[in-house]
Order: sequence, then structure tokens, then C-alpha cells
Amino acid sequence: MPEESTASGRQRILEQAQRLFTAHGYDGVSIRDIAQACGLSNAVLYYHFGSKRNLYFEVLREHIAALTLCLQDAGAIEGTCRERLAHMARTYARMILEYEDTVQLLLRDLAQFEWDEVLQMLPDLQTLIPSPLAAVLEEGIASGEVRALDVHRVDIVLMGMISAPVAFRARQPSLTTTLDEDVDLVIDLLFSGIGPSSTTANE
Amino acid sequence: MPEESTASGRQRILEQAQRLFTAHGYDGVSIRDIAQACGLSNAVLYYHFGSKRNLYFEVLREHIAALTLCLQDAGAIEGTCRERLAHMARTYARMILEYEDTVQLLLRDLAQFEWDEVLQMLPDLQTLIPSPLAAVLEEGIASGEVRALDVHRVDIVLMGMISAPVAFRARQPSLTTTLDEDVDLVIDLLFSGIGPSSTTANE
Repeated sequence: MPEESTASGRQRILEQAQRLFTAHGYDGVSIRDIAQACGLSNAVLYYHFGSKRNLYFEVLREHIAALTLCLQDAGAIEGTCRERLAHMARTYARMILEYEDTVQLLLRDLAQFEWDEVLQMLPDLQTLIPSPLAAVLEEGIASGEVRALDVHRVDIVLMGMISAPVAFRARQPSLTTTLDEDVDLVIDLLFSGIGPSSTTANE
Repeated sequence: MPEESTASGRQRILEQAQRLFTAHGYDGVSIRDIAQACGLSNAVLYYHFGSKRNLYFEVLREHIAALTLCLQDAGAIEGTCRERLAHMARTYARMILEYEDTVQLLLRDLAQFEWDEVLQMLPDLQTLIPSPLAAVLEEGIASGEVRALDVHRVDIVLMGMISAPVAFRARQPSLTTTLDEDVDLVIDLLFSGIGPSSTTANE
């Protein structure tokens, strides 16, 4: 039996763990199931992660980190604050459609833990993914494209603006708009609001 | 054994069914469990609802109708479009905090059904709750308080704007803002946007 302590071995365990937790739920999967799926001994998994609980939280942590990096990359394009936020919003919308099931299934099992414990294991569970939006909003304020606002509250609202129509799309059989049109509406509302005095001219 | 075919009997069955489905999940509850909790025979439940599946969807339908009515009432106050939407947003935010667990638990079991079947049983599952927001937005357009927009897309975005910070609040141990301050920010963003040219003056 190969003793894997390399990064690739660790990564392989996380991938199998994510697959099994998503398919069977936290309670439906044992360390032994994951070890067998990786062709490793239980001892190797305990060596890397200590417990099933830690492994589960590590799966979530990796997933959140990957989504955050993806959003950060989307905001790194050249352009105005509005163009960058639009690109991030499109990316986030596609991320939700692609990963919604995985994330929902993983988060479903979070309900098994006390929330204090969850926040101890994942203190930035709620703030990490919106943080690249906050950073670009902050730059927009500095450049005068965005009015002075608390970016760490607006980023959460913006995530809700994007995710609500995407969740609606995912469950509606017939649609009259495209995903890009939905995102365009969100960015238009974000910058101009619904009031009549707002200028709706884009840059 | 009392034969109940009155509205109050039907209502009592729905209440017990909601309580049991929420506590034990769709699979964890039988018609017999619900009948026993109501002190009724299985036959009476079948008479009213035909099957466990129908009863479950009726529980969801009643819940959605109650939330929609609550939102509609909140929008029936005297005031500007902005004041009415603000009042609806506060009401919706409180509804989410109060009923989130129940709704989440009930919706969790929806995953057991094919989505086609869900939409056949509850065709307006996604459109009913936002509909009072759309109605008030429509009146705002008519009165010139809101620019011309597709209210049946903006209502969904607005629900996301409200629910995201509320969901964040519900899971965050220390908060620096009140629920009303969060709703005020949402209404400010909704009417004025984040752009520098927006007027942020309220009516």
C-alpha cells in the first residue's frame, strides 16, 4: 500500500471525499469509504486530516477558496469598474449554475454542526467569496466611478442580485431572457437603480 | 372517530403535516403518522388529500400563499412607491428570519421529485411570492417614481437583494448593523444605484 504524503495524494483524497460526501451525505460516508475510493489505508487519511469532520471542512474550504480565486481572476481584466464588475457577475452566475448542486449538497450537511463550530472551522465562510467584489468596488470608489459606500455590505447585496435570477433560471422550464441579459440587468440596476432621475447611460 | 370534512379539519391536518414533514423529512413521515397526530383515521386524510405526495405539495402551497399574502398586505400601506417597497422589504426580511428554517426544510424534500413534477404541482412556485413586489413596481412606473423596467425581472433581483444580507445576518455571530439598516441600504441601492451620478436624496 503506497504511503502518500505528497500534495497530489492530499488533493486526490479531497476530490474523492467531495465526490462521496456530495453523493451520500456526511453521515453516509465513512473514512474507510474514502480511503477505499483512493486505494489508501485509513491511517493515511487520519495522518492527513485527523478526522472525518476535519476532512469534510477541508473539502468545503478548498471549494470556497477555488470559487473565490475564480471570481478574483474575473475581476483582474482591464476596464472600468463597471466592466470589471459585469465580468465578475457573469463569471459568478456561471459558477452558480455549474457548482450549485455540489455546493448545496455540501452545505446541506453543515446543518449537522453547531453554527459556532462551523464558524470556528471556517471563520470566513461568508466573507471570502464576496471579497473580490468588495475589492473592485473599493477601487471604483477611489477612481470616482462608485459613490462612497460600505463595500463590505454592498458586496453581499450584489451577490444576492446575481444569484436570485440565476436560481430562478435554473428552475424555470421556459425562459425569455439569456443569462447574459439577466446579468446586464443586474449591472444596470446596480449602477443606476430604478429611480427616474438615474442616468441609465453606460460608460 | 370523528369524520372531519370541514375547513378547520383540513387546516389541522395541514398544520400537523407541516410540523411532521419539517421535523422528520418527507421520507420520515407516513400518512399514518400524520393521521395519528391529528387523532384521525388514514381514510380521512386520503379523503382530503388523496396521497402523501399531494398533502406535501398542499403544505408547500399553503405556506407560499401565506407568505405572498403577508407581502401583499405590507405593500398596501399609504405612501410613495419607495415607502411601500421599503415596508415590503422589511416585512420580507423578517419573514425570512422567522420562516427560513421551515421553508428550507420543506424545500429540501423537493429535491426528491423531478422538477417537471414540482412545476406541475406548483406552477407558480417561483413567481407567486415576488408578485406583490412586481405590482408595486408597476404602480411606481405608472406614477413616474420608477423608470420603465421589466417588473417581472426586477422583482426577482429585489428578492435577492433583500435575502442575501438577511441570510448573512442569520449566520454571523457579531453584527455591526441592524436589520432595518440593512433594508435601508437595499432600498437606497435599489432606487439610486452605486454610480456617482445617482441622486441619493430620498423623497
